[in-house]
Amino acid sequence: MTHFFKVKSLDEVLALTREFEPAETETVDVSNAFFRILAGDVTAPRDMPGFRRATMDGFAVNASSTFGASESAPAWLEIQGTVRMGQVPEFDLAPGKAARISTGGMLPKGADAVVMVEHAQTIDNTSVEIYRSVAPLQHVIDACEDFSSGEVVLGAGTFVRPQEAGLAAGLGITTLPVHRVPVVGIISTGDEIIPIDQEPAPGRIRDINSYTLSGFVREAHARVIRYGIVKDDPDRLRRACEKALNETDMVLISGGSSVGTRDYTVEVLSSLPDTRIRVHGMSVSPGKPTILAKSGTKPVWGLPGQVVSAMVVMKMVVIPFLNRIQGFRYPRPVRRVPAKLTRNVASAQGRRDFIRVMLENGPDGLKAKPVLGKSGLIRTMIHADGLLDIGENLEGLEKDTIAQVILL
Amino acid sequence: MTHFFKVKSLDEVLALTREFEPAETETVDVSNAFFRILAGDVTAPRDMPGFRRATMDGFAVNASSTFGASESAPAWLEIQGTVRMGQVPEFDLAPGKAARISTGGMLPKGADAVVMVEHAQTIDNTSVEIYRSVAPLQHVIDACEDFSSGEVVLGAGTFVRPQEAGLAAGLGITTLPVHRVPVVGIISTGDEIIPIDQEPAPGRIRDINSYTLSGFVREAHARVIRYGIVKDDPDRLRRACEKALNETDMVLISGGSSVGTRDYTVEVLSSLPDTRIRVHGMSVSPGKPTILAKSGTKPVWGLPGQVVSAMVVMKMVVIPFLNRIQGFRYPRPVRRVPAKLTRNVASAQGRRDFIRVMLENGPDGLKAKPVLGKSGLIRTMIHADGLLDIGENLEGLEKDTIAQVILL
Repeated sequence: MTHFFKVKSLDEVLALTREFEPAETETVDVSNAFFRILAGDVTAPRDMPGFRRATMDGFAVNASSTFGASESAPAWLEIQGTVRMGQVPEFDLAPGKAARISTGGMLPKGADAVVMVEHAQTIDNTSVEIYRSVAPLQHVIDACEDFSSGEVVLGAGTFVRPQEAGLAAGLGITTLPVHRVPVVGIISTGDEIIPIDQEPAPGRIRDINSYTLSGFVREAHARVIRYGIVKDDPDRLRRACEKALNETDMVLISGGSSVGTRDYTVEVLSSLPDTRIRVHGMSVSPGKPTILAKSGTKPVWGLPGQVVSAMVVMKMVVIPFLNRIQGFRYPRPVRRVPAKLTRNVASAQGRRDFIRVMLENGPDGLKAKPVLGKSGLIRTMIHADGLLDIGENLEGLEKDTIAQVILL
Repeated sequence: MTHFFKVKSLDEVLALTREFEPAETETVDVSNAFFRILAGDVTAPRDMPGFRRATMDGFAVNASSTFGASESAPAWLEIQGTVRMGQVPEFDLAPGKAARISTGGMLPKGADAVVMVEHAQTIDNTSVEIYRSVAPLQHVIDACEDFSSGEVVLGAGTFVRPQEAGLAAGLGITTLPVHRVPVVGIISTGDEIIPIDQEPAPGRIRDINSYTLSGFVREAHARVIRYGIVKDDPDRLRRACEKALNETDMVLISGGSSVGTRDYTVEVLSSLPDTRIRVHGMSVSPGKPTILAKSGTKPVWGLPGQVVSAMVVMKMVVIPFLNRIQGFRYPRPVRRVPAKLTRNVASAQGRRDFIRVMLENGPDGLKAKPVLGKSGLIRTMIHADGLLDIGENLEGLEKDTIAQVILL
């Protein structure tokens, strides 16, 4: 219990994500693959779109028959027929002829471009004047122009957005290999914590952290199991940890911030089989009293009990580990927006500070206004739109500095 | 069918969100309220935290007994006892005395501040030296300092993030009034469109848009019902629309982009009871051939069939209407990041352009690199990290301009 632990920097802690592995692979229907991470490459089984396709309404032509055409000297073409949507044209386009075609239609053999309807004028049912020349493949997508058969179209580690699912659907790939959705177990500890549906006696408070932490897990598209509140009793906490480690991919112990509770969490974690403490304190504010253990292959966190610290640590530290288990190959970029500070903000050198700020639209971009109030007030997180990130090497930031804000 | 419709600007279209109303109210468990919008104000039923609480480990004191204390002239205080977590202290603090307390502990009566353990030194079991003076309420949260009984803590229209749910939990509010999750119906039309599990004959393509559009709805935390593919037949499309309008809050018709298909969608929509066309064409690229009708109280969209156009219109135009139905009181701010253009980008005046860009980290911030390739290629959306927004009054943007990019 008396090991000496060096407080780690945020970057040192985040580098430990590499000690953990992505969840195993499963196969899901493409309509359920959104917000999952691909566990393998996806290869095009065929060309896409697979045929020469019009991207405009107009006339399918051989581009060479329009060369030199202009308003003053239009090209005159005979209309050979009409392409019907979803059908193979019943004719090959003869030289010097044109075929009516709609967006999405298949070009007849012999045609290699489309003249927009705005640049043509039908003279009668059988002929059309063309006022502008087109280049080969203009207003056309060629048979393998989007993707070619055999090409890797999506790599392992890709986050599935709407377009990635759409692409798979378009290629007829109805199921995708993805990493299983991780499950996060949350244990609350502390003799002063009571369930939210009970009336607290003086000195007690309701279990806020289970709910805030659940929210961040859900926001990251993972699942939560809450293991309720465990009294300050090492045996009970150990049993709860063991159960949660059996049933989930990552465990959060949301305890008190006091030195006593921290020691006690470290003691319980150290007593678990195959478990090593990896972080015991970070040079991050708020969030210093954070503990990370590796138990078997899984991360177990002792989070600060203070509500705001717990949220900041969750957002800035724990979620990157969850992302790793979800299958992200690289740290997921945290979205930051630049904003101009409305006043000086102090910070301590050697410590990474995250300051709650409100964002307001100003004449030349966003303004970041530090949220006033003691750091332990949940009110400050309700008012906050983001966290101002102040690096270790800074003693603060001056008014009117353009600073980076992580959106909440 | 021959009404004259003026093409609307993006802002004119977005102003029409006000013609639609939020979904009705329901009550949900606080643990299921994430990403929902509050349908009513939430009032604190009690003070929070409800008692005077320590925010540091150390000694509870009456601040006045520390005034003037310093390293060279410490204050000497008698230790009266220890506050146990979750318990009401069994004693009132006498003047000139101190009580051991942990973070989260309840201050005894007579104490109004906490001296951090780092600024105190116990002499023996009964006395402590204090090296720094504290002000009243320092390292303490007062009984009603976070929220007071009767105060409106969350207003109607608030989006429930982790901290909002946590606050409700902390106040013992176990259920929250929220707007029902809207359901969006998606109908695909077009004779050339086939289900994704079928092999397309030449001239046909699989139904990409149902999947991409579903993704955007899911990303916005709403639900989807897909109504499959309806052939180009007015009666069938009308019946599908009527069914979808009965069962959902908003209907998307994902059809071809051709003039013919558009006319045909307008015709079907105009024939529905109590339905008015509100938008027929927008000065937005991609996305011009977009149709919006109001049928009863519900929006019905005729979206461009081209895959990229459909996605851009969904993200920039349709989702704000979904947000309105979800209960957002104001247009939800679209997250934009500034990035420096790597080359000139052309645009047409009088048209709002959204250009696909890749984002790369550069030495002085993000760089936005336009994605090359024809606009109809889904590949361009796979490569894109964001959309560059070019206003109506611009003819383009020059290389090295810092431009706004909407993240995809």
